[in-house]
Amino acid sequence: MNFASDNWSGVAPQINASLQAQSTGYAAAYGDSDLDKKVKAKFSEIFEKDVSVFFVGTGTVANSLALAAYTKPGGISLCHREAHMIEDECGAPELFSGGGRLVGVDGAFGKIDPDDLVSRLERFDPGFVHYGQATAISLTQATEAGTVYSLDEIQEISAIAKAKNLPLHMDGSRFANALVHLNTTPAQMSWKSGVDILSFGGTKNGCWCAEAIVLFDTDMAEQMTFMHKRAGQLHSKSRFFAAQYDAYLENGLWLELAGHANKMADILRQAIEGSNSARLGWATQSNEVFCILPLDVAGLLEKQGTSFYPWHVPASLRQKPQKHEGLYRFVTSFATTHDDIEKVMSKLC
Amino acid sequence: MNFASDNWSGVAPQINASLQAQSTGYAAAYGDSDLDKKVKAKFSEIFEKDVSVFFVGTGTVANSLALAAYTKPGGISLCHREAHMIEDECGAPELFSGGGRLVGVDGAFGKIDPDDLVSRLERFDPGFVHYGQATAISLTQATEAGTVYSLDEIQEISAIAKAKNLPLHMDGSRFANALVHLNTTPAQMSWKSGVDILSFGGTKNGCWCAEAIVLFDTDMAEQMTFMHKRAGQLHSKSRFFAAQYDAYLENGLWLELAGHANKMADILRQAIEGSNSARLGWATQSNEVFCILPLDVAGLLEKQGTSFYPWHVPASLRQKPQKHEGLYRFVTSFATTHDDIEKVMSKLC
Amino acid sequence: MNFASDNWSGVAPQINASLQAQSTGYAAAYGDSDLDKKVKAKFSEIFEKDVSVFFVGTGTVANSLALAAYTKPGGISLCHREAHMIEDECGAPELFSGGGRLVGVDGAFGKIDPDDLVSRLERFDPGFVHYGQATAISLTQATEAGTVYSLDEIQEISAIAKAKNLPLHMDGSRFANALVHLNTTPAQMSWKSGVDILSFGGTKNGCWCAEAIVLFDTDMAEQMTFMHKRAGQLHSKSRFFAAQYDAYLENGLWLELAGHANKMADILRQAIEGSNSARLGWATQSNEVFCILPLDVAGLLEKQGTSFYPWHVPASLRQKPQKHEGLYRFVTSFATTHDDIEKVMSKLC
Amino acid sequence: MNFASDNWSGVAPQINASLQAQSTGYAAAYGDSDLDKKVKAKFSEIFEKDVSVFFVGTGTVANSLALAAYTKPGGISLCHREAHMIEDECGAPELFSGGGRLVGVDGAFGKIDPDDLVSRLERFDPGFVHYGQATAISLTQATEAGTVYSLDEIQEISAIAKAKNLPLHMDGSRFANALVHLNTTPAQMSWKSGVDILSFGGTKNGCWCAEAIVLFDTDMAEQMTFMHKRAGQLHSKSRFFAAQYDAYLENGLWLELAGHANKMADILRQAIEGSNSARLGWATQSNEVFCILPLDVAGLLEKQGTSFYPWHVPASLRQKPQKHEGLYRFVTSFATTHDDIEKVMSKLC
Repeated sequence: MNFASDNWSGVAPQINASLQAQSTGYAAAYGDSDLDKKVKAKFSEIFEKDVSVFFVGTGTVANSLALAAYTKPGGISLCHREAHMIEDECGAPELFSGGGRLVGVDGAFGKIDPDDLVSRLERFDPGFVHYGQATAISLTQATEAGTVYSLDEIQEISAIAKAKNLPLHMDGSRFANALVHLNTTPAQMSWKSGVDILSFGGTKNGCWCAEAIVLFDTDMAEQMTFMHKRAGQLHSKSRFFAAQYDAYLENGLWLELAGHANKMADILRQAIEGSNSARLGWATQSNEVFCILPLDVAGLLEKQGTSFYPWHVPASLRQKPQKHEGLYRFVTSFATTHDDIEKVMSKLC
Repeated sequence: MNFASDNWSGVAPQINASLQAQSTGYAAAYGDSDLDKKVKAKFSEIFEKDVSVFFVGTGTVANSLALAAYTKPGGISLCHREAHMIEDECGAPELFSGGGRLVGVDGAFGKIDPDDLVSRLERFDPGFVHYGQATAISLTQATEAGTVYSLDEIQEISAIAKAKNLPLHMDGSRFANALVHLNTTPAQMSWKSGVDILSFGGTKNGCWCAEAIVLFDTDMAEQMTFMHKRAGQLHSKSRFFAAQYDAYLENGLWLELAGHANKMADILRQAIEGSNSARLGWATQSNEVFCILPLDVAGLLEKQGTSFYPWHVPASLRQKPQKHEGLYRFVTSFATTHDDIEKVMSKLC
Repeated sequence: MNFASDNWSGVAPQINASLQAQSTGYAAAYGDSDLDKKVKAKFSEIFEKDVSVFFVGTGTVANSLALAAYTKPGGISLCHREAHMIEDECGAPELFSGGGRLVGVDGAFGKIDPDDLVSRLERFDPGFVHYGQATAISLTQATEAGTVYSLDEIQEISAIAKAKNLPLHMDGSRFANALVHLNTTPAQMSWKSGVDILSFGGTKNGCWCAEAIVLFDTDMAEQMTFMHKRAGQLHSKSRFFAAQYDAYLENGLWLELAGHANKMADILRQAIEGSNSARLGWATQSNEVFCILPLDVAGLLEKQGTSFYPWHVPASLRQKPQKHEGLYRFVTSFATTHDDIEKVMSKLC
Repeated sequence: MNFASDNWSGVAPQINASLQAQSTGYAAAYGDSDLDKKVKAKFSEIFEKDVSVFFVGTGTVANSLALAAYTKPGGISLCHREAHMIEDECGAPELFSGGGRLVGVDGAFGKIDPDDLVSRLERFDPGFVHYGQATAISLTQATEAGTVYSLDEIQEISAIAKAKNLPLHMDGSRFANALVHLNTTPAQMSWKSGVDILSFGGTKNGCWCAEAIVLFDTDMAEQMTFMHKRAGQLHSKSRFFAAQYDAYLENGLWLELAGHANKMADILRQAIEGSNSARLGWATQSNEVFCILPLDVAGLLEKQGTSFYPWHVPASLRQKPQKHEGLYRFVTSFATTHDDIEKVMSKLC
């Protein structure tokens, strides 16, 4: 059973089929094919707004170009201190933004604390050049801790950003999982709540390799066209990306895939809540379950071939693991089966 | 019939099949899967040397990171004045190299003129800081003009590079087409002829999206690991790239695909040489045919649904197109059929 | 006698005196002193317009930040192929602009040929992302060849820039020398002729270390404030720069210094025109005299302690040096004396 | 009385005299003059080692180029969380290092806590590419809090750096003040204690504009030559920098100037320790005195024309200011007089 990460899974059958259907014939390169255009139009439908879409190969590139689009000299972007872009992207945001800086904001379980955000922003007095200038705020939905901002919470962050005239980026590497959890619309969870630019993930939710930058301000599309090309992201056989998203967005497949992953996580959560040996780290809101296990139980699971990762204990976790325990992350995906869950559950109870 | 570019084609059936075979099951992300390791080992076999391989999404990224690996402050890389990296990559080499500069070298039909290269290098006196410093030489095999450097020609460039202690990069976006033309080994056409770092293309020759950086100096692998990640090129489902190269390199498929493309180009070349209306621009050595057509013939071909591009007339072309003529490029690929060629030929004779 | 370069001279006595007068007492650091403000206001008077002024340490920084201010992703700035920024700044424009590229334009004796400029700009079709995008045009006044653009010539370049919606930068490292030659006003030679941003030199004309970026579009001042600081150019004892410019701009000292240098060059030019052994390379319009000397005469001059540089022969020079001759550059400055000129002249006649 | 900062003062008379002596005559530009060479040789004498010296215009540039010299892709430099480079340089380290990141380390009163440093370094496992890689450690001597690392403390940091094979940079913007405090030698406080590269300040201690990068590893000089030029720091009239350092380093003037500043600070410290209204924030070890004053006393001082800055209260300050109090910084310099101190003291007692 594999709970290491949702990016250890393969590709959803419908997406596979779409790629096969596109595998023959000719199509204009560099994003000019009919399929590219059709799929990009689909994004506008889904977001209920004319949006500009740029396909990219990784979430790291999506995040980095999104920040780069808004960067300024001495620019500083604020994100949660455990956000992927500050913890796991090896300097990519700095490279693509020409030397912008990321500053981490505190907050429990992956979510930015609005008060801490306000307090950090206060520092950047436009008249005081030495510190640099704040240029963007980024939040992750769902977060690295598997939690999900409510619409109110997004809007609270967004109001802070707007008050400082700063753009709001959403890292939606697991956008679908959060959307399903909130049971809202893509528009509501993004631009209607004040998001200006979105990293829209597909890879973790059943695609091979499909991420997209979604611009809600289409005036920025002209410059993003050059940024995207300059980043080496204008793939010649762009229809390969389009074909994945074509199936992904068709008939709500993406929500179905994410819904399945979330459901598997929820079943696992229930099992843990009912377990004698395990206990939940914090609320499960998407497809990641964080739990505290006795070290020997964890060891046994691993020995029996279950993959999952030990996790760093966040300051916000009140009931810290004891000496004989550890904190672990279990990630479900479109490919997780009931059988997988049951097998793990049998060890935990 | 489509002769617009080899990147307008889809994916070879064997590569498609390999992707399908990998579409289920779990695999370690970020290049750590068994398949990744197996395929990278295959590269070492094929190059008869322990090489380090990094999968990337585009040739632009491959070229840019290759140059970046060797860049220095005030660094200048020399390439043919029509090379892809200087003409078609929108500042990517400059971005990834932190502001390196490309300088174009003259030479007929896409190949660097060794004398002009030597003369330009003379300028960079290590004691004269104002001009900057030469940091790399890059040649393209096959070239943008569809020509192929002989081994002797590569070695001549390489000797110039070595004499100045400069690394030699090869842009092998069409490496397979050149290799088939020369009927030599990958090793012979690369490191045995003095190449230090190679952009090894797959996309134009039947893959969906598969390019690789091949380091012949494996000591550079440690830093390239970070450069590759920082460029947003450490794809999570890296097995998607591995699966393509797995089929591509198996049983010489890559040479078969390129051989077919070259053969189709050669048949077209013959037809042009025997034509009354068309004439060849210059030698056809890979899968690109450059020819001079009467404007009305070209117009008719386009009208009847044949795709191909008008081309800029190089200074090195002696018999320039006349007023009623144009220079055109026809590109063949693994997907080009005898039928396609025959249909075009019927218009040209 | 020293004709190596105007930057081999020291500092004009009036500027020295101003520095001494400022050497005691306290002043607000980082450009906030009263003197800084007073001197910046002087710039607005002299340019007959509200301008924003940023003091920097070198012309290289002034040019690089000026271009960086207007750079965009994949951006390309066009300048004369012998311009200082493309020939002598070791990658600084690329560094400060985050990887912008410089493209050289042809033209006789240091001046951009408008036709070649137009032709190169045609290439940058906004809809074709591969080549990148043109972002600025830069001309040098006086040029590296000591020639001076007439107002009409500046306006012709400026009209080309405006038609493409591109900003026009002027590298005015020898602005004063050109101004004196044209006998016009600073406003006329800059913004009234379409210049948007100016590198205003002081160092070559009698300062120790004083260059300034002058923004005619003051809306850009906010971002330049951060760019300037980020470039490490917000000097703490900024009054040191202000003190130099205070004296430099007072009572037309700068024009007097440049007028003297130009006059010395003109006397030298006359001597060369009347000489049997030497002949003029091309027109002397500022403080640089280019002449063709027999190698033995040049050798003798050097032997006797006269400093000057051999120069590369430009393609535009019709009467090229013969085998026994060389092209040489003699630069005069505020410090050149009649005696210096006479001593050199005595060898040339 | 001015205690705002040591960079509000002017220039020491001996340095002024040196500049005047150099103001006439000619000298080779771009650092090639005899004076440049003589002064650089002086640095080697003073440091008892063959060092490479590069003059730059600001401490920001010195720090940024020092880090850039050692940067690698995804590189991270660690410094105290209140260090100038992380707090006050507006992205310059990021710009010059091509996107390197700074990470702040905790520690009381401006000094890096070795335990926290070790703990942060543990994170950078060379085999884990996602976080990036540690590339340098930087300490500030004297610190931003006016404290001074003992030789033992420097060596402790240095040992940690060496164990991780990381270079150690010292920001010596107030190197002289620290040196006088420790009563040791420049060699002892730098390379003999493990420092690899030094920002050697002059501006705050009586120069107009003179900072230097000192390389103890002269093998790096070749690349720094290009970095320095590319940063726009190869000033044409380099002798202007040389002239300042010539006087500065002659007959121990630099130690005399710093000694005076330290002494003035010490007298002020004593007065505060004996005061009824004021109390010391923490130990005074160089030329900065941090003290807690009643708000009304501070207000009165300012009203009477004394300049000084309120300061952020560090976490490490145990006896925090009460409601009616504030923390303030008083900086002395070579120009501070006994009379200045006495006047302030009269208000504090």
